[in-house]
Amino acid sequence: MLKVQLSAAWYHVAQGERLEGLKPLLRHTRPDLVLTAMTLPDGTAMDVKNLLQQDEALADVPVLAIAPRNDKAARLRALAAGVDDVLVKPYNDTLLLARIRNFLRTRSGSEALPLQGGSQPLGFAEGSTPAPALAPPAMIALLTHGIETGTSWRTALQPRTRHRVIDRRFNDMQAVLSNPAPDAVVVELRPSGTELDLIADLRARNTTRHAVLIALLDHETTHLATAAFDLGADAVMMGAFCPKELALRLENQIARKVRHDRMRASVRNGLLAAVTDSLTGLHNRHYALPALQQIVRTAQDSGTSFALMLGDLDHFKRVNDLYGHVAGDSVLIETARRLQAALRPQDLLARIGGEEFLIALPRTDRGRALSVADRLCNEISSHGFPLPGQDRTVAVTMSIGLKICDNCTPPRRSRGAEIQTLIEQADKALYSAKAAGRNRVELLPSAA
Amino acid sequence: MLKVQLSAAWYHVAQGERLEGLKPLLRHTRPDLVLTAMTLPDGTAMDVKNLLQQDEALADVPVLAIAPRNDKAARLRALAAGVDDVLVKPYNDTLLLARIRNFLRTRSGSEALPLQGGSQPLGFAEGSTPAPALAPPAMIALLTHGIETGTSWRTALQPRTRHRVIDRRFNDMQAVLSNPAPDAVVVELRPSGTELDLIADLRARNTTRHAVLIALLDHETTHLATAAFDLGADAVMMGAFCPKELALRLENQIARKVRHDRMRASVRNGLLAAVTDSLTGLHNRHYALPALQQIVRTAQDSGTSFALMLGDLDHFKRVNDLYGHVAGDSVLIETARRLQAALRPQDLLARIGGEEFLIALPRTDRGRALSVADRLCNEISSHGFPLPGQDRTVAVTMSIGLKICDNCTPPRRSRGAEIQTLIEQADKALYSAKAAGRNRVELLPSAA
Repeated sequence: MLKVQLSAAWYHVAQGERLEGLKPLLRHTRPDLVLTAMTLPDGTAMDVKNLLQQDEALADVPVLAIAPRNDKAARLRALAAGVDDVLVKPYNDTLLLARIRNFLRTRSGSEALPLQGGSQPLGFAEGSTPAPALAPPAMIALLTHGIETGTSWRTALQPRTRHRVIDRRFNDMQAVLSNPAPDAVVVELRPSGTELDLIADLRARNTTRHAVLIALLDHETTHLATAAFDLGADAVMMGAFCPKELALRLENQIARKVRHDRMRASVRNGLLAAVTDSLTGLHNRHYALPALQQIVRTAQDSGTSFALMLGDLDHFKRVNDLYGHVAGDSVLIETARRLQAALRPQDLLARIGGEEFLIALPRTDRGRALSVADRLCNEISSHGFPLPGQDRTVAVTMSIGLKICDNCTPPRRSRGAEIQTLIEQADKALYSAKAAGRNRVELLPSAA
Repeated sequence: MLKVQLSAAWYHVAQGERLEGLKPLLRHTRPDLVLTAMTLPDGTAMDVKNLLQQDEALADVPVLAIAPRNDKAARLRALAAGVDDVLVKPYNDTLLLARIRNFLRTRSGSEALPLQGGSQPLGFAEGSTPAPALAPPAMIALLTHGIETGTSWRTALQPRTRHRVIDRRFNDMQAVLSNPAPDAVVVELRPSGTELDLIADLRARNTTRHAVLIALLDHETTHLATAAFDLGADAVMMGAFCPKELALRLENQIARKVRHDRMRASVRNGLLAAVTDSLTGLHNRHYALPALQQIVRTAQDSGTSFALMLGDLDHFKRVNDLYGHVAGDSVLIETARRLQAALRPQDLLARIGGEEFLIALPRTDRGRALSVADRLCNEISSHGFPLPGQDRTVAVTMSIGLKICDNCTPPRRSRGAEIQTLIEQADKALYSAKAAGRNRVELLPSAA
């Protein structure tokens, strides 16, 4: 019956009858959601959840259990086992569909990015982070109309959760939206439904966008529950206030939020890694070229001049050959540090090759560019580089090719080519510096 | 008045009176949204939009213009200039707030990730991609109840847009959800509002999650418009069908979608770059360690054995010294190719150092591991490596340290340490292989 209903709503449905044989079915179909009866011929909804959780590729698939109305104990057991939601029979069809849509949306926000051929989704690449259960306590805000409700909910909930519970009024939203924003918000939803706007609102704000949102209705008002799901509530509880169930749901949802937060951080770190040179911590070539492009564009738009330098350590191979790779790496790190210290925050500094650095100075004229380039040269040559684990230092010098751009042409179509030409010009100047004896700056005139 | 209203809704409001001086204000406050009257003392809403678009850091900020009710021509001009939406006076307060929430949510889905100190958000790093206007035509689906409405809308819209327009019925949703899914869906919203579920539904499905959604109401039904915004419609048009306005809105929204799609792809590429060795295209160390961890876990869970190898090219420095870095790089690329070709898809192959490769074979016993390792050694030594631009080849050999894990202990807490131990053991075996004369496989017995 459910299959017919879901197919009519244009979902693809794969059906299993029992726990046995479920794993290959799940692995094969890779579902977005699993709906299950609370009891199967050979297991329970909790077994289904465990089955999924044991499989890295399926661990993120939510499980919705359908339960008899009056078995509250079973519902609590299922939630305690991590089942994502429990819908009681007979359920309202519209509510079911809204519940499903909500699962699909929530999941899409956290999609791990599977990589080519590998079985390792990137979001889980952080093997050393502690399990969510060990994460620090979260902050839970209860949002109620009356202070009595707030106090009584908080008093009942706090002993059942390791998280910190605060209660707030609807007319004091500023306190909820300010930093530190709560990790979870429990919203009292009254029959008028005016608080639905608030759910949409919390979902839209920067500070609460990723917070857990749970709506509490003291009556079974299906259309409000449906709306709450569609507006972004993560869970809806109808009927008398049950602190035990609320604590379980908060625990599950907060654990999910911690996982998703980690995944977003991991994506962010992955992106940072993609544009960072892991040895020196400077930007890498992948970052430098578009960043240089933007400096060119800004100079063109504002009619200002800028300077581009290519710096290359002289005879760097000798350092590696004489003192080993560890010493060579330490020279590169120290070079990066000295260059960085001599530049402004708005300057671009990147390691674009083994011992080659790209430096771009926006809003810089010829005079300043020459003096900065000389200073950089001097920063490298003026005092020796310490060798790791040794008492002595090694002398290092750098040659710099400089190109001043003070007659920037207006934006052109093929910006890639433009950048390429600039770099070639700076490279030509660098070659002259090397040919002229190294440890010096050579300037390619802007007319070249 | 608007300021009071928005502050009461707990938004931070910064106010400007005229176009002059607006740019520093915007740069300083970095707003999430700009609300503007259609005409300012010294400019128009279009000028505000242009101002934002000229600034890379602000280009993504949406502009909502507030216009007199009866100046349709001004509204169309604003939309044609890229203003993101126009609200007519007097507007309904609830609708305004829903419109704002919608802008905030849409924008959050596309946040570029600004990197430390740099002015270059990563999402824009692809300087060479064509401007959205040059993107291929999109597919627009009109979803109506009656075939007459569908046909007449399509006939009126198609001549005004370069995109492809199709019309579909609500009872034939499968055609809309199937691949290729439409880039934009225009939904006929009737006074009953039953189609609101459909908007929530399209926002939840994999295939239409990122599609442009525009709701059309033939009456001014504010509460339906509000709900449509909160459920995820990108635009709502009320009143008589106006193909010109619809075409303009579709053009704007499709351009935004193209930008957001590109940004998502760019994030994805950035992530790929973060786990890929750019020289050989193999996985890098950043990917290899957690992937190895997962192979260990699977072996433990399933009670199977696996093999870990560290392969290192012998005397590789000589290749670089004698033939240059280009030759060295080409040897590394060819090594990667030969190793890859000799392994199964489920095997892990990564370049984890200059000339060092990590190979892990899941579900592999001692016999097979030894034969694979010998084969890999042989693949490298049996025929020379071509030197780029030269007719001759260079002989290269590889030493391999092998560690078989066939008595895996059950999952332990500190998996990082476990992996580290495994790698050290394989490294010990590699050292033996080097010491024993290179170009050979040495096995560390599983008891070691």
